Amino acid sequence: MLDETWQRLVQGACDAEPRALARLISRVESREAGWQQAMQALYPHTGRARILGITGSPGAGKSSLADRLAAGFVARGHRVGIIAVDPSSPFSGGALLGDRLRMRDAATSAAVFIRSMATRGSLGGLAQGTRDVARVLDAAGYDLVLIETVGVGQDEIEIVKAADVVMVVCVPGQGDGVQALKAGIMEIADLFVVNKADRDGADRVEADIRGMLALSGDDPDGLERVFQTSAVSGAGVDALIDALSTRAARVPLSADRALERSREEVLVLMEREIARRVRVRLEGDGRLEEAVRNIRCGRSDPYSAAESLLADLASFEGGAHE
Amino acid sequence: MLDETWQRLVQGACDAEPRALARLISRVESREAGWQQAMQALYPHTGRARILGITGSPGAGKSSLADRLAAGFVARGHRVGIIAVDPSSPFSGGALLGDRLRMRDAATSAAVFIRSMATRGSLGGLAQGTRDVARVLDAAGYDLVLIETVGVGQDEIEIVKAADVVMVVCVPGQGDGVQALKAGIMEIADLFVVNKADRDGADRVEADIRGMLALSGDDPDGLERVFQTSAVSGAGVDALIDALSTRAARVPLSADRALERSREEVLVLMEREIARRVRVRLEGDGRLEEAVRNIRCGRSDPYSAAESLLADLASFEGGAHE
Repeated sequence: MLDETWQRLVQGACDAEPRALARLISRVESREAGWQQAMQALYPHTGRARILGITGSPGAGKSSLADRLAAGFVARGHRVGIIAVDPSSPFSGGALLGDRLRMRDAATSAAVFIRSMATRGSLGGLAQGTRDVARVLDAAGYDLVLIETVGVGQDEIEIVKAADVVMVVCVPGQGDGVQALKAGIMEIADLFVVNKADRDGADRVEADIRGMLALSGDDPDGLERVFQTSAVSGAGVDALIDALSTRAARVPLSADRALERSREEVLVLMEREIARRVRVRLEGDGRLEEAVRNIRCGRSDPYSAAESLLADLASFEGGAHE
Repeated sequence: MLDETWQRLVQGACDAEPRALARLISRVESREAGWQQAMQALYPHTGRARILGITGSPGAGKSSLADRLAAGFVARGHRVGIIAVDPSSPFSGGALLGDRLRMRDAATSAAVFIRSMATRGSLGGLAQGTRDVARVLDAAGYDLVLIETVGVGQDEIEIVKAADVVMVVCVPGQGDGVQALKAGIMEIADLFVVNKADRDGADRVEADIRGMLALSGDDPDGLERVFQTSAVSGAGVDALIDALSTRAARVPLSADRALERSREEVLVLMEREIARRVRVRLEGDGRLEEAVRNIRCGRSDPYSAAESLLADLASFEGGAHE
């Protein structure tokens, strides 16, 4: 079933061997043949990790805060995985990650694994790919996985929705302060952090957040939800870690939510695999190229072309391998 | 083929009848049965509009700037559609749009159509949905369509990539100024706008952008690429409109890029339709529910479940109707 290379990598990852772990993640992320079987083999070793989602607008200091949190959790005896979902540009590509690795002290680094997700053309979908990588880290014994996403886009929301605890990082002086919170984030956030709290306006941002929370009338558990931190000085980080630990201990999810999440994941995995097969099938198929040429010269349109190509596919065989 | 309601709506939209236009967009956006045929009927009426993508981080003033641009283009004789891709939260839902409609003066509003995209659970994919709505506006005679996206997520990048001209809005004092530009945006942006230019630091942001552009060594056309504006006072907006007009006139795309874009669109339409059919097929199918229960109690995993359900689908019939 699972070939020798995959087997060695899965075993190495479960033994928390960093090189095997990194290679396994790369192969799973790029959907190399056999990745599903590798995940099947890993799966029984997962389920212990708590997933912490960190989001917020660019420049809010999410990465520095994630580093502080990681160091703090390590000091409390945890092993911490960090997944940075940061679409790289030709201008920033990877620099951030390099800096972070250099900055981290040796004592911490043994218990921390940082991984940056490639977001461009993510074959399995960004949210599913992140979920897969989090599971690999879970199997490798990282009992706390921080998933850090830049921005407030739809994919990012999907990603943090998969976390057990979701934290939104705000910062004083950024636009209207709370405008960054608009993007569907309020309703999925468990905790709000006003970072760079030494700056002017931190209290106002906190007050704005509390105002919005009061409006929502949604305070299911009575726990504190708004925190101020300075990732640079470390102020407020301990209190935040306490709060995160308390919430993480309250996981797992309700049975209904867990079922719904699994159902959605199975459907997404199926859809992605079918999409992959359709592309393989149509690659180099003259009908697709002809249809595209017909669109460009005005003899057809994308909607008609999709409809007739789909009819041509006639029957789409199942089966795991193609 | 196309039922009477759809026919009436398509006709009404092509006549720029606002109510028909709004209803048609809603039905296309929610993928009501027959939407593909409606788009097929509309398609021959499209192709005149230029698409302008506006992106940038939250709080950069994109909406105000889009309003200014719309007013300016209307004054120059254009009809302008605005598509606001703004994931709404329970706290902001639609308020923005209402405000904008109230603010707009009557003379302008006759030539402007504003539409907010629902981003949650967008069945056809957010990027494709936005493309479809832009086409409907095109068919209705809006010869300039501004697509405004909040944030810098992956979906947002996909959306603006479909535009003919892409503009990134920055603002002084937001994080590191250029940090908001990291997210894969630099390479797809044609123009950079430093908005709120009356604030301290605007010149520094402009210098940072010029520095990055110089580094990229990529100046294919020699046109000015960096602008300062104040959406509040209107300063700089006319020069920006000039620049946008110049660039829009340089469209259309190279033949290769146009072919690639059509190819990708056809594949995405096919994938989405197959995904929809898979979901319809599996809805209420006991096998999916059983697989999900097995995952929850540890007898299976999502990867195995997806694999075996896919094998069960055995043959996937094509054909447009189901």
